[in-house]
Amino acid sequence: MTVTAAKGFSAAGIAAGIKESGGPDVALVVNTGPRRAAAGVFTSNRVKAAPVLWSQQVLKGGEVTAVVLNSGGANACTGPQGFQDTHATAEKAAEVLGCGAGEIAVASTGLIGILLPMDKLLPGVGRAAAELSEHGGEKAAIAIKTTDTVHKTAVVTSPAGWVVGGMAKGAGMLAPGLATMLVVLTTDADLDAGTLDKALRDATRQTFDRIDSDGCMSTNDTVLLLASGASEVAPEYGEFADAVREVCGELARQLIGDAEGASKDIRIEVVNAASEDDAVEVGRSIARNNLLKCAIHGEDPNWGRVLSAIGTTNAAYEPDRLAVAINGVWVCRDGSVGDDRDLVDMRFREVVITADLAAGAERAVIWTNDLTADYVHENSAYSS
Amino acid sequence: MTVTAAKGFSAAGIAAGIKESGGPDVALVVNTGPRRAAAGVFTSNRVKAAPVLWSQQVLKGGEVTAVVLNSGGANACTGPQGFQDTHATAEKAAEVLGCGAGEIAVASTGLIGILLPMDKLLPGVGRAAAELSEHGGEKAAIAIKTTDTVHKTAVVTSPAGWVVGGMAKGAGMLAPGLATMLVVLTTDADLDAGTLDKALRDATRQTFDRIDSDGCMSTNDTVLLLASGASEVAPEYGEFADAVREVCGELARQLIGDAEGASKDIRIEVVNAASEDDAVEVGRSIARNNLLKCAIHGEDPNWGRVLSAIGTTNAAYEPDRLAVAINGVWVCRDGSVGDDRDLVDMRFREVVITADLAAGAERAVIWTNDLTADYVHENSAYSS
Repeated sequence: MTVTAAKGFSAAGIAAGIKESGGPDVALVVNTGPRRAAAGVFTSNRVKAAPVLWSQQVLKGGEVTAVVLNSGGANACTGPQGFQDTHATAEKAAEVLGCGAGEIAVASTGLIGILLPMDKLLPGVGRAAAELSEHGGEKAAIAIKTTDTVHKTAVVTSPAGWVVGGMAKGAGMLAPGLATMLVVLTTDADLDAGTLDKALRDATRQTFDRIDSDGCMSTNDTVLLLASGASEVAPEYGEFADAVREVCGELARQLIGDAEGASKDIRIEVVNAASEDDAVEVGRSIARNNLLKCAIHGEDPNWGRVLSAIGTTNAAYEPDRLAVAINGVWVCRDGSVGDDRDLVDMRFREVVITADLAAGAERAVIWTNDLTADYVHENSAYSS
Repeated sequence: MTVTAAKGFSAAGIAAGIKESGGPDVALVVNTGPRRAAAGVFTSNRVKAAPVLWSQQVLKGGEVTAVVLNSGGANACTGPQGFQDTHATAEKAAEVLGCGAGEIAVASTGLIGILLPMDKLLPGVGRAAAELSEHGGEKAAIAIKTTDTVHKTAVVTSPAGWVVGGMAKGAGMLAPGLATMLVVLTTDADLDAGTLDKALRDATRQTFDRIDSDGCMSTNDTVLLLASGASEVAPEYGEFADAVREVCGELARQLIGDAEGASKDIRIEVVNAASEDDAVEVGRSIARNNLLKCAIHGEDPNWGRVLSAIGTTNAAYEPDRLAVAINGVWVCRDGSVGDDRDLVDMRFREVVITADLAAGAERAVIWTNDLTADYVHENSAYSS
């Protein structure tokens, strides 16, 4: 399923020996057509990994035949050699698939600042091509995991006969612009690259861009949408965009649910904002407040830290009209003490913080996680 | 010493019963003149505690006779009642000192969102006034501690016969604009309020504004500078400003050194920036990167996370010209792998990260701490 749920796609995931653990580390997703329209959204970090620079060029053509993905190394901050390695990876895939390297997107994830072992990666691409299957989506999703504890997939099927499916990896360094490491979406809807691009940007803006596990923006974020046209159905834009957004939303929720070391998933709803931009700005400020994230970890409904975070934004509001609910209990009203904080039940993994700006009618939802000793442990030992 | 190192000041610190621990929690600093010039800098958080709103008004007059400080409660997000309580505190101090309430600054620190126990605070102000002493600076510095493990003081003595001294509290929620909770500086130099204001703003911009322990901006930050004129010396501006900056710098360094749960103090030097603003923006981005802060905790010279943080800024630079040194070893050159990371010795508490933007000749230093399981523990249990 996953990237092979839609007709016109095959995939594979194999162990090429890049990871010291010997686990699966190379995935290949191939669009077998008839169309090869594609769109992509990439990290807004100005320090971009070699595969991001490469794939951005590929996507300009609006056609992608295949995506090569590897875990075990991000190929970021690796200089001219790193870019040559990405180019060689695309050439290798083009050779075994019988197409041009300019139709091959490449995505990498893992530690920054180390060159990939090309003597393992290139033969791995060949072996992955030999194992391509219409049922290979699951293996591909597994091969892109790094610190992920589970692989992430989602599928939406339209009654009209077309499908959008996808896979994602990401467990840390989740922050807006984008908010994930690697995502490949596929569809057998019959659409052109421009339509795919619009649907993908609309979807990521409201999903991956609104999860923020640790405020850290990756050098490698890549979200690709490939369309085979194999269903021979050309859906209405709105219907298709909804499906893409639904798949992205499900994957985003899975990413937050698997964030490194987290024990709580925190849904921050900012309501009654003067604009959607204000709501997003306030939500992100709350999501990035380490003191609040610690408090949520301790199941402490510390609304003062929510107000402190709101106070650092430029959004429209009056401090003495702010209200905050935690899991439905309005612990802060009119910028001051509200209902009894002992009424708040925080035993469950999901925690909902509602911030009412009393300044308009717009809203946005941002997801984040708590800050835990496990997060510190996992990320203080990552590269050693 | 501390706030009583300069002539013309008396101070006291007593236990009024606000803190459940029974420790000292009310401090009083009195300017006995002959002058009563004063300047203040306050949090840029839009959610401001009642004592901040009060003291901002007091400082507009340019004269302060006394400062009442309490730990054990921030009096933030406490609505109209909180403001009335601050007003009553100033009135009480004015009554016992025989001056107007408009000359009394008030500062509070502790948990947000709870009203102060006025039945304890007001008698405490009276008792503090009864214990005022020219040697009371140390007791005042101790009475403003919250999670601080040590009290923080600094003094600079001019050969010309005047002194600048000060005390600070703060161990968490340290972030620019300002970066500390409460600071009172005193001097016996004979200067007007305008000169004090300029010197204080120049100093805080380069000291308290450039420490960032956890990216969280307080509702209560207050830095006051009181001048008694008792030395009868009117120093040159430059000489006086240097002394104020030195005292602020020493206090800022002590705040970082005592940050909650920290095991490393991290000095981030951004060099060869196109502008000082660029250098500060890059330094703050690095200082707020949780993944990097975890890596430093693990003594892992993970320069990739430094580049990721630089990449999120709008500063002028070319990604392939960036260089990063950790404790003097240039582990990243030309945006890629540099010298052997195994050469980096990170055993000591102080870690120096140098980021070379290769874009100009400006520089700035930002201080932060590592992110530790102890920080999580301390801040997940703070209010309960």
